[in-house]
Parts: sequence; C-alpha cells; structure tokens
Amino acid sequence: MGKVFLVGAGPGDPELLTLKAYQLLREAPVVLHDRLVDERILSLAPGRKVYVGKEEGESVKQEEIHRLLLAYARAYPFVVRLKGGDPFVFGRGGEELLFLLAHGIPVEVVPGVTSPLALGLPLTHRGLSPGFAVVSGVLEGGGYPDLKPFAQVPTLVVLMGVKRRTWLAKELIRLGRRPEEPALFVERATTPKERRVRTTLGAVAEGEVQVCPPAVWVVGEVVRAFGTTGNRLERLAAEV
Amino acid sequence: MGKVFLVGAGPGDPELLTLKAYQLLREAPVVLHDRLVDERILSLAPGRKVYVGKEEGESVKQEEIHRLLLAYARAYPFVVRLKGGDPFVFGRGGEELLFLLAHGIPVEVVPGVTSPLALGLPLTHRGLSPGFAVVSGVLEGGGYPDLKPFAQVPTLVVLMGVKRRTWLAKELIRLGRRPEEPALFVERATTPKERRVRTTLGAVAEGEVQVCPPAVWVVGEVVRAFGTTGNRLERLAAEV
Repeated sequence: MGKVFLVGAGPGDPELLTLKAYQLLREAPVVLHDRLVDERILSLAPGRKVYVGKEEGESVKQEEIHRLLLAYARAYPFVVRLKGGDPFVFGRGGEELLFLLAHGIPVEVVPGVTSPLALGLPLTHRGLSPGFAVVSGVLEGGGYPDLKPFAQVPTLVVLMGVKRRTWLAKELIRLGRRPEEPALFVERATTPKERRVRTTLGAVAEGEVQVCPPAVWVVGEVVRAFGTTGNRLERLAAEV
Repeated sequence: MGKVFLVGAGPGDPELLTLKAYQLLREAPVVLHDRLVDERILSLAPGRKVYVGKEEGESVKQEEIHRLLLAYARAYPFVVRLKGGDPFVFGRGGEELLFLLAHGIPVEVVPGVTSPLALGLPLTHRGLSPGFAVVSGVLEGGGYPDLKPFAQVPTLVVLMGVKRRTWLAKELIRLGRRPEEPALFVERATTPKERRVRTTLGAVAEGEVQVCPPAVWVVGEVVRAFGTTGNRLERLAAEV
C-alpha cells in the first residue's frame, strides 16, 4: 500500500518548488497532476505522469480523481499528487486527504508557495492592512461564494475569480467596498507569460477589464502603495 | 552596489525551503536574518551571518535594520535578507523593499511557504469555508489591530497573537464569533519541537490555554473537521 504525498508545486517558477517537492518529483514512480501545474515542473519528474485536471469549478471529476488516487496508491510504492500552488488552498486537498485516510492510505502533505504570495506585492503593509484574506470566486460544484464575511478585509485576494470578475466586483461594491479602490490582476505569476493589469474595482464591475485565467486578483490599497514599485522592480531585475 | 534578495525561509523544516532560497543561501556572502529563522536553515549558509532580529511588535530596531541592509548592500556583491515564513507576511518586507528601492538598491523577492499553510490542516474545505484570512495580533509599533473586518471570516489565522491571546479571543467573541468555536495552536510548526493545542475560542478568552510563542493560531470549523485526522496523520507518518 503506497503512501500518497499531497504536494504543492508552487506558483509556476520551478525554482519556487520546495526542496522536498523537488526530491519527491525526481523519485516518484507516478505523479498525478492538475491542469495548473507548469510544464517545466512536470518535466523534472522522470516517472509516469497522469493528468487528472479539471476546469475551474468543475466537480464531476472529483470522484474520479479519488478513484484514481486509490488505484495508484495500491499499485505503486508511493504516489505524488501534485497541485498548483499549495495543496490546501482551494485544491480540494482536504477532500482527497480525508478520502485516502478513510481507505487506510497513509498521506503526507508537502505545502507549497501559494500564488497570492508570489506577486512581489506585500499583502500587508504598515498603516494599510494588518492582514489579508483569500477567497475563491467559485465554490466546489460551481456555486457562488458568500462574500459578506470577506468584503471588509483591507487586502482581499480572489482566486479562480477571473470568469466571474464582473459579478464579484459588483458584489464587493454592493457590500461596501469603494469603486475607486485599486485592483491588480496577475496572469500566470512567476512564469515567462506573466502579465499584470492594474485597474479599479469599479472598472472591473463595469466589465471594462480584459484578463485571462488563471490569474490572481488583489483588491486593496496595497496595490496603490506598490504599483510603481512593481514596475521599477521589473526594470531593476532586468538590469542586474 | 549589491542586489538584495528578500528571501522567505519557510516555516522551519529546511526541506520546505524553495530551491531558489537554498541556492541563494549556499552562495550568499552575507545573510541578514531574523530571530525566527531555524538554526538548521542558517547552518546551510557558509557565508557571514548577521542577526538583526527583534521581538514581536518591537519597532525601534526597524531603522537600524534598514541602515544595516544599506551598508551591507554597498559592501557586498549581493545580500540575502532572510525572513521566517514568507518575506511579505508580517515580515515588514514591504518597508524594507521601499527603503532599498528609494536608495537605488536593486531588490528581488523570493517568496516562501508561510506557516499558516504548513500545519497539515486545510484552511478551506467544501461546505465549511470558501476562503481564509490571516491577521497579525500585533501592529508594527506594538498597537492592537482592528479585528472587525476579519471577525466574520470562517477560517481565521492569527499570527503573533500568542501573548495577547486572551484579549484577541475576547475581542473576536465580542465581534460575534461563538465561544464554542474550535481553535488550534501550533507551536513551532514543521520542526522537531512542534506542539499542538486544541481548544475553543471561549477557553482562550477565559485565559485557560497554555501556549508559547511562536505559534500559529487557527479559529474555525476546519479545526473540528480535521482534528482527528491530524492525529491520525501523525500516527500514520510514524508508521511509514
């Protein structure tokens, strides 16, 4: 009976893998991975790779993923279940963990760098925000989240919120956030295809912002504080 | 003029360093580090190590840290500024970033695994919470945070909140959280000295819970959902 490692692949850049994740990928006889795992990371794993991806909010396949995890755990000495970012940030890692334990399969969780923390943007900053929140734009099964408990947090990060960005922005404004509040989308953070869109919450609500998933969406004054810094950082990084 | 890398050391376990952080530590001529960085991680760095730590909430030293960063950046080809966890989660990394850029020093940020995601506990789970929030129990300068915007988030993680846990728990209850709500403290997560205390928010408010900093504090139903799993995970991990 093989142990299953629930492993975070980090935000995209292979150098942001943890040492433990890297070692497991190098040695794993089989890797079950999502759609959001970078190709450069998958290419580090010489073992068998099984794609079990699903689209945002899709739920029909979760039972199938469970079935596959169980089958591979029974067939191999160990299995890596690789998820984009951190396995417990909206990866349904909790469900997979409980399912495997219920079937007597040992599980170990290897956390990863989550994409909201890989933007080069501090989510908290003196005088602006004593914390941050991360919320999913899509519930498991495709439902709409209740944003009320999250709406007042000074720095709010929305994951899986690109497709529903107009609805989400309108809802946040209805719940009291200001339309002038700055917002930042970062598509494919830490990869060569990274693209940043700076805007306001109001512009998103008006349907004026063009952005493609997957992207991390940050709302709050920290975006204003570090907006120019971000550009300058990129320029400086290119010079060094 | 040396570049400064603001590097996250992760939660404690050296295997949870990123590949990039590991490589930078191995090559850095000088490492400026905080109190919360694990000794096993510091021992990976053969270069000069400079302790610039400060206690929770202490602010007097931040200017001195800025002065040291500038001096070392001017004296060395590059400098690693190493912070526990992620450099932008309450590490005042934002302030150091802005200070260095204002003085013409190139900066690159290397994110790390943040401790709230290294507990083996999913912070979100189907039907329980569509997101989570992280808040600091201590403002820069030592002040008390305004918890109101955070109080309704279903899964709330408090960092640097151990010393003020009684005040914080009372405040969360005053703001509407239930005293019966489960709470978990994890001292020194991912290290050999890790210790877990399961309790309730009400017990914390009553001053009944003994716990030592540094610890991550999670409030929410996810603690109940994964409470026994946590123990079982530890037992299973020992068997494998």
